[in-house]
Amino acid sequence: MAGPRPMAVADRLAELGIVLPPAPVPLATYVPTTLCGNLLIVSGQLPMVDGRIGWTGKLGAGVSIEAATLAVRQCFLNVLAQVSAALDGDLDRVRRVLRLGGYIASTPDFTQQALVMNGASDLAVEVFGAAGRHARTTIAVPVLPGDAAVEVDAMFEVAI
Amino acid sequence: MAGPRPMAVADRLAELGIVLPPAPVPLATYVPTTLCGNLLIVSGQLPMVDGRIGWTGKLGAGVSIEAATLAVRQCFLNVLAQVSAALDGDLDRVRRVLRLGGYIASTPDFTQQALVMNGASDLAVEVFGAAGRHARTTIAVPVLPGDAAVEVDAMFEVAI
Amino acid sequence: MAGPRPMAVADRLAELGIVLPPAPVPLATYVPTTLCGNLLIVSGQLPMVDGRIGWTGKLGAGVSIEAATLAVRQCFLNVLAQVSAALDGDLDRVRRVLRLGGYIASTPDFTQQALVMNGASDLAVEVFGAAGRHARTTIAVPVLPGDAAVEVDAMFEVAI
Repeated sequence: MAGPRPMAVADRLAELGIVLPPAPVPLATYVPTTLCGNLLIVSGQLPMVDGRIGWTGKLGAGVSIEAATLAVRQCFLNVLAQVSAALDGDLDRVRRVLRLGGYIASTPDFTQQALVMNGASDLAVEVFGAAGRHARTTIAVPVLPGDAAVEVDAMFEVAI
Repeated sequence: MAGPRPMAVADRLAELGIVLPPAPVPLATYVPTTLCGNLLIVSGQLPMVDGRIGWTGKLGAGVSIEAATLAVRQCFLNVLAQVSAALDGDLDRVRRVLRLGGYIASTPDFTQQALVMNGASDLAVEVFGAAGRHARTTIAVPVLPGDAAVEVDAMFEVAI
Repeated sequence: MAGPRPMAVADRLAELGIVLPPAPVPLATYVPTTLCGNLLIVSGQLPMVDGRIGWTGKLGAGVSIEAATLAVRQCFLNVLAQVSAALDGDLDRVRRVLRLGGYIASTPDFTQQALVMNGASDLAVEVFGAAGRHARTTIAVPVLPGDAAVEVDAMFEVAI
């Protein structure tokens, strides 16, 4: 009674026109991912583009919701790049996006963090379908490392 | 040598006079809970009451510790409602409240976040007894989605 | 083909001149650690020294990077003390430091949180070697409980 075999993630990425970025290198003595059983834990990813933070500043002080939505999308692409590296390039081993954490640099009067974070959540579902539907916690922060506008971390269930 | 069978959680809730709220619906393409083995991950819950945020504003700028304590208690009730929904209504399948994360919207000079978060921690122990004793991280944030005063997320160990 | 047996963690701590502090007592109805299978979850640890917060204030407003680096190091020592207590004193049961969360009290214009957090990350690797290499998320917060300058929480994989 199984339904049609789902599309391979690599094919789905191609269909979406997405080329994963190279996995960003951590800036210190930590690593991009760790694994405990089937639980893959992904370090917080900044919106790095070609080795530089692509979006700096704060929501409520010059960074628009549209720009920040692109920034969290970039963070999620960097999450995916780290997951792909941890899985020897085989994203079909992802069983579930378990959780995304969204950290939105904000002035104290900006309250649309959830809307911004949808840039990552929507992309997770576009790429993984039902397996991309995740638990999520989104908060504001006063600032982020390197003045990044947003940061996203994650937990995945993977086949080992 | 087993002790007396512990009271069913539903009975304990009734004894405490607690009627769980309906599980709040996420505002975007994420889901309230995900499961990885016995680990149930719960999305950040705002202090929703009847579909609206019941407590807005910040500690240190008009929201009292007493009000915020009620607000985190409401967040935890919403956590419980999500867990109940994930367990087909059977909260006796909860083995342990593993972790609570508390996010308290604060001005930079308010430092009593731990006291506020006790509203959730105390309720966890009232409901689940020893199984309600959890690890916890409490931080301040400059603001929260929808101007909510507080947010709580959680991880539970459950019988599957 | 196994390499040399790694040094016991207790010996490594002695070599580093580290005496673990007593495990700080939580200030409320939560507990320092919870366990779910091999996953040990550690509550957020403030930079407690002899029962008092050793470093207060914010980065960008009087707390130097050097002082904050010592403070996160103290937080990680308190994490280790909690892990040791959870493992009946046997830190050799640590298989992996899975994740550190770093919360750095900051003014909105301070952006060197990653540099500060290296105080904890470097110590994890000094103590545990390759098993100390962890995933990490570092964010700024406007303030912390008790006006602590920094807070660190953690997840470990342990042998049970």
